[in-house]
Formats: sequence, structure tokens, C-alpha cells
Amino acid sequence: MSDIRQQALDYHEFPVPGKTAVCLTKPAQSSHDLALAYSPGVAEPVREIASNPENAYRYTNKGNTVAVITNGTAILGLGNLGPLASKPVMEGKSLLFKRFANIDSIDIEVKHRTTEDFINTVEAIADTFGGINLEDIKAPECFEIERELIKRCNIPVFHDDQHGTAIVTAAGMINALEIQGKKIDEAVFVCLGAGAAAIACMSMFVKCGALRENVYMLDRQGVIHTRREDLNEYKALFANNTDKRTLQDVIKDADVFLGLSGADLLTADDIALMAPNPVIFACSNPDPEIKPELAHAIRNDLIMGTGRSDYPNQVNNVLCFPFIFRGALDVRAQVINDEMKLAAVYAIANLAKEPVPAEVLAAYPKVSSMSFGAEYVLPKPMDPRLLPNVARAVSQAAIDSGVAKITTLPTEYNV
Amino acid sequence: MSDIRQQALDYHEFPVPGKTAVCLTKPAQSSHDLALAYSPGVAEPVREIASNPENAYRYTNKGNTVAVITNGTAILGLGNLGPLASKPVMEGKSLLFKRFANIDSIDIEVKHRTTEDFINTVEAIADTFGGINLEDIKAPECFEIERELIKRCNIPVFHDDQHGTAIVTAAGMINALEIQGKKIDEAVFVCLGAGAAAIACMSMFVKCGALRENVYMLDRQGVIHTRREDLNEYKALFANNTDKRTLQDVIKDADVFLGLSGADLLTADDIALMAPNPVIFACSNPDPEIKPELAHAIRNDLIMGTGRSDYPNQVNNVLCFPFIFRGALDVRAQVINDEMKLAAVYAIANLAKEPVPAEVLAAYPKVSSMSFGAEYVLPKPMDPRLLPNVARAVSQAAIDSGVAKITTLPTEYNV
Repeated sequence: MSDIRQQALDYHEFPVPGKTAVCLTKPAQSSHDLALAYSPGVAEPVREIASNPENAYRYTNKGNTVAVITNGTAILGLGNLGPLASKPVMEGKSLLFKRFANIDSIDIEVKHRTTEDFINTVEAIADTFGGINLEDIKAPECFEIERELIKRCNIPVFHDDQHGTAIVTAAGMINALEIQGKKIDEAVFVCLGAGAAAIACMSMFVKCGALRENVYMLDRQGVIHTRREDLNEYKALFANNTDKRTLQDVIKDADVFLGLSGADLLTADDIALMAPNPVIFACSNPDPEIKPELAHAIRNDLIMGTGRSDYPNQVNNVLCFPFIFRGALDVRAQVINDEMKLAAVYAIANLAKEPVPAEVLAAYPKVSSMSFGAEYVLPKPMDPRLLPNVARAVSQAAIDSGVAKITTLPTEYNV
Repeated sequence: MSDIRQQALDYHEFPVPGKTAVCLTKPAQSSHDLALAYSPGVAEPVREIASNPENAYRYTNKGNTVAVITNGTAILGLGNLGPLASKPVMEGKSLLFKRFANIDSIDIEVKHRTTEDFINTVEAIADTFGGINLEDIKAPECFEIERELIKRCNIPVFHDDQHGTAIVTAAGMINALEIQGKKIDEAVFVCLGAGAAAIACMSMFVKCGALRENVYMLDRQGVIHTRREDLNEYKALFANNTDKRTLQDVIKDADVFLGLSGADLLTADDIALMAPNPVIFACSNPDPEIKPELAHAIRNDLIMGTGRSDYPNQVNNVLCFPFIFRGALDVRAQVINDEMKLAAVYAIANLAKEPVPAEVLAAYPKVSSMSFGAEYVLPKPMDPRLLPNVARAVSQAAIDSGVAKITTLPTEYNV
């Protein structure tokens, strides 16, 4: 086992198992403290909430609590290993929520029975939380699960594997296209992979201005086109009325390649066929669809992003999910709608254009460039401006689109 | 609104809503930290748990996490106000778990649909936790719910309203009977109230040596006897083959009165009928079945306990539930069985016989007596010896009865 693998196990095991704990925000030492916290004092907030459910936001931690919920059917790139095995990932997500946005997040692993049973289970416990982050649930069930839970719950429900990925990818893509001098409504897109994240990304690109007819999505059977009869309703949204059938057919003269598939599925020959000044986001993890070294060796006019932190332009969901929930919770948004997602896209994209503060530079001693350009189309996760910039934009979008129960913005953002 | 009520609301609202939060137990500042906590490092504990589920106790916080779960159907003495209104109580329970036993506890409020649905929901999420504390669920559903969940889950499931109450009441009762010079297997018991806690208490008394034929339980229809045809299976366990029909019939010459009913349901005349040196635990909250001042005015040979902290001998579940779970979690007990419950009873009872340390005396400046006797049959909640004494006894009982996966005791207990 490599050093980093053992380090990761040790990190999780010592000095106590896991990564999160519960702590108290109120004094609980004296008998008087406990008489307020529990019997008899606790009856007062109970009565207040019984008379008006909104008071749960006033007297409990509901409003700052996000549940990270999974059934363990699509853990990282490792597949369906069951809910219990997913627990370190979910606790990790909770750690990131706390670390980046001061959100109290708890993980819930749900036994996988049926899709309907999963939806019922989450609906049954939803009152407990201020928001629900769905995670590592396989496609296509994840679409129905999210859609139903949004319908049944009056708190934000957000499947991060779809929308977090889509928001960050779109932010990087908008910047990359701008640098390459391409208009999004003229660009031709090739998306290798047709899972939940891929479909969410292409839907987001369309919302950002891409033309649906300029999108070519491929699954294991090749190009998704209108004459295929094996498409589920989600893939069918991107069926292209085209005679092109292979990756090679569609990559020729394409402006953008987005990979959400597997290692080394894009070749040097493929890249050579692309239009001038192409954009390649090869997001398969840990090994991208094409290694950046190889891509840059083929042509020097491209902008490349990956899912990895050791190359420029990392597409990392942590640029989005803590802050989109922060923004939603702060104004008690009842959903996370398209307006809020787009606000997050542009807030993230715009931050990459700002000069980087010294503390952020110091956090990334090995990074060669952190000024807007081909090697810096996305901000870095440690950038503390993400919290106020993205959360504020999301809150404002919630207010403007009428889904916020609070219509003033926080005056400060702290972690 | 009285001062204490406003204080309780303010305590819950400021400076942040609620009483608990999530905190991190591992460093999460640098990129290196995050590479261990999340991608890519987190894949290692995922693989380890996938290959052996027991590793969840090694690499996640499952083993120190107890969920406090309710459907809100019997909140405190307030009744069925729904799951959301119960949230301050459940958060309060989590606060007590942390404060007294360093257990990370999260609250889960479940939408009340059917009993079967509730059981399915809790079973579905049970893998997340190291133990489940059921709370404020009305009888008789609570019996089926607990029984089924114990069967379906491989972690301890414990309905505190039943067993926590029963354990603490039994501990106090054993000591009170000893002081009064009565043998438990000769004493006659009257229990006013036949809800979940009452049935659990009388079951526990029987396990401690009381004879079932010496127990008279009363519900709203009077004495529960063998010729009644309106009894559910739980009440039927205590149907007495007797001609006595009223409280007055059974209180005459009774040694023990346990009240789990309502305010002022026991009169001075009733008390006057009891056997010499009686024991009266009037646990209705906040107002007992008879006021201690009144009872003591009638006769001076009684020992009296209540549910209130401002009278001697408070029967308070917090003497038990944090420590019984601590003991169970420490040795990874798969259930909380009768042996463990009885170990808790005797550990709590025995602690009342020990001299009280100065720090405990200091925590209770207004308490007149804290040496074993009529006014001190139970230890006080702030007694720090409860944690090691009760938890250790419970762990040992789990080991001895063969339900523990770990067979060594902790060397120290800290909060």
C-alpha cells in the first residue's frame, strides 16, 4: 500500500474514528443550564413550533443543518458498494460543508431497497433538516429520486453529483471559451459519457447559451442520436438528429470536449481533429480521458481542465456545493432553482477573473499560474472569497426569483 | 410569560438557533488534509469497509453516534404535536448524550404515517449509527416499534421513555425499600398509569424480584384485572387475578405507590391507607400525583420521590441513558439486553450509597441531604461517577452475557 493510502487510513482512524463529531452551542454545565436545555424549559420552544412550524428555524438547528444522503449505489468511481461503505465519503462531504461554509452537516446512509422506498425514507425524515444533499446515487434512478423529493419536501434538495459538477464545469467552460475567443452559442460540444453528471452538465451548458443541436453526447453505444431506440428519457433529451455515430465522427472540428467517462478514452489522434483553440475538460477520476502532458504535446492551442488537483483547472465540486447551500439556507430558499444554479456558475466564473489574494497564492505554492488565463479558468478551493461571492449571488437569485422566505442578505460570512 | 419560559426561549434562540452543531475531529485546512479527508484518500476507507463492514467502526464515527429518533406522537407530557415540534426535545437529548457521556448524537424526526412505515424508515437508515434511542413515541405502538427494530437492526435500539424510566425508578425503589426495611419480593405495588413507562417500570420491578401477583396496575378504567376484556397484550401482562377495582381498593396496605399518570390523582386519604413505611414515587411531570408537602404532612414514615429537580429523590432518565449507551458502544454490544439494564439499575442504586464528593455537593447548594437515606435514594445527575460506574457495569454485563463484540473495558471515561 502506498504511503498516501496508508496516510488516508490513519487519518480516518486516529486519534478517534471518523472525521466529524457533535458539539454543543449552548452552555450545559449547571442544573439551570439543563433546566433550559431540557426539562422543563424545552417545552417552551416545543409549544412555539407546534403553533407555527416556521419557529423550528428560530429555536432549533434545522436551518443550518444539511443532510448528506446516499444509498451507496455509485460511490466515487468505485460503483455500488452499499450504503455503509459510502460512509467515509458522506462524512467527508460533511467535513467540507463545515470547513468551507460553516454548515452543520450529517451523513445518512440509506439501505438500498427500491427507488420508491428510498424516496419515502428520505421524505419521512426531511423535516429534520434545512436542506438535503443527495450523493453517490446511480443513474438513472437519481433523476427520479431528486425530482420526487423536490416535489415532496419544502426544503432544498440538490443532487451534487449532477448539479455541483454541472455548475463548476459550466463556470470553467464559460471562461475557457472566452479565452479561446469562442461564443457559447456557436461552439460545438462533445460529451463523452452520458451518466447523471454528463446530462446535468450539458443541460447547464444549454442554460448558459449552448445550442442543443451543437451538442453531441456519447454513451457506450456511441453517439446518442434521434434514431436510437434504446434511450431513457434523460438521454433522449440530448439525442442529436445526426448521421454521425462515433467519437471520431463528432470530435472532428468540435470546439469543446467534456469527458465524464473513463481513463484514456480520448486519443492524441482524436484531439488533433478538433477545431482550432479547443477546450478539453477530461474529468474522469483519478485518471482523465487523456493525460494533460499528452494533450499539450499534440497541440499548443488548447485549454485543458481535469478532475485532479495536481493539474491546472481542477473541476472540483467543492467550489460550489458548500456555498450554494449557504446561499440557500441564509435566505431560507425552498428550492435550489435554475436561477440560483446559474448565479453560482457566474459567481464562480467571475471570481477567476479577479486578482488572487496573497493568502490564496500561499496556499498553493506549487501552482504556476493563478491569473486569469489558459491555466486558470477556475478559482481554487482554498479561496476564501468563494464563500461570500457565491453564497451572496445564490441568495440574491433566490430572493429575485421569489423562492426565499427571507429577503435580506447576511452582513457577513464566517467559517 | 414567566421569566423561566422566556429564558428557555432565549436560550434556544441566541446566539445561534438550537443547541448542537457539527464539529471536525480531523485537520481540514491544507490541500493535503482535504486529499486525505475526501478525494482521493477517502477511497481507501471505503474499500476497507466494503471488504469488511466492521471497519466502519474503525474509519467512521458510526461507533460513537447515537440517533435520537421520534415520530413526535408523545412529546413530553404535551401529547402528539408532530415530529417537527419535538425537535427541541430531541436536540436536548443529544445535548445530554454529549454532555454526560461524550456520545455524538443526532436527532431524527420522522413523519408519522403508519407504524410499519416508521419501522421501515428507521431500519433503512440504521446503518448510519452505532445505536438508536427511540423517544417520545406513544403507546402501544412504541412496543411494536422497539421490538421490530431490535429484531431488524444489529445495533442497540432502546426506547428511553420505557427503559430509562424503568431503570432509574427501579434503582431508587430498591434503595427506598431497603431503607424502609421491606423486601422487594414481599412488597405490594400500586402503579397508577399503564402507559409505556408504567409497563416498563413494573416489568423491571419484576426482574428485580417483585412478585407479579403483588402488582396492581391501574389505567383510566381502574384496576387492570384478569376479567377485563379491553386490555392490549402489554397491559394484559399485569392483569391481576383480584376482585379489587379502584385505587382505594388497592392502595390500602400497599407498600409502594408509583405514579406515572397525572397531577394530583393521589389524595391524602389514599396515602393514609398505605402500609407502614411506604414508598411513594409520584412521577407525573411537572405536577406530581401528590405534592410532597402534602404527603409529608399526612405521615412521616414515607419515602417520596418525584420527577422534579426541586424535591429530593428526582427520578431523572439522565441518570441512565447516556451511560447505558456509553457502556453498550464501548464494547460494541449488539443489543441492550436485560442483563445490561439490570447492571445499570444496581450501579445507579449502589452509587447512592457512596459518600458524595465535594464537587457534587458544590453543584447542589440547595440540597439538604446527600447521604444515603430517605431524602437521597438516587444519585444526582451532576455526579461524575455515574459515567464510569454505570458505563462499566453495562459493558461488563454485555461481555458476560455474550452480546459484546469487544471484550475489554475502556481504561478511562472522559467527557
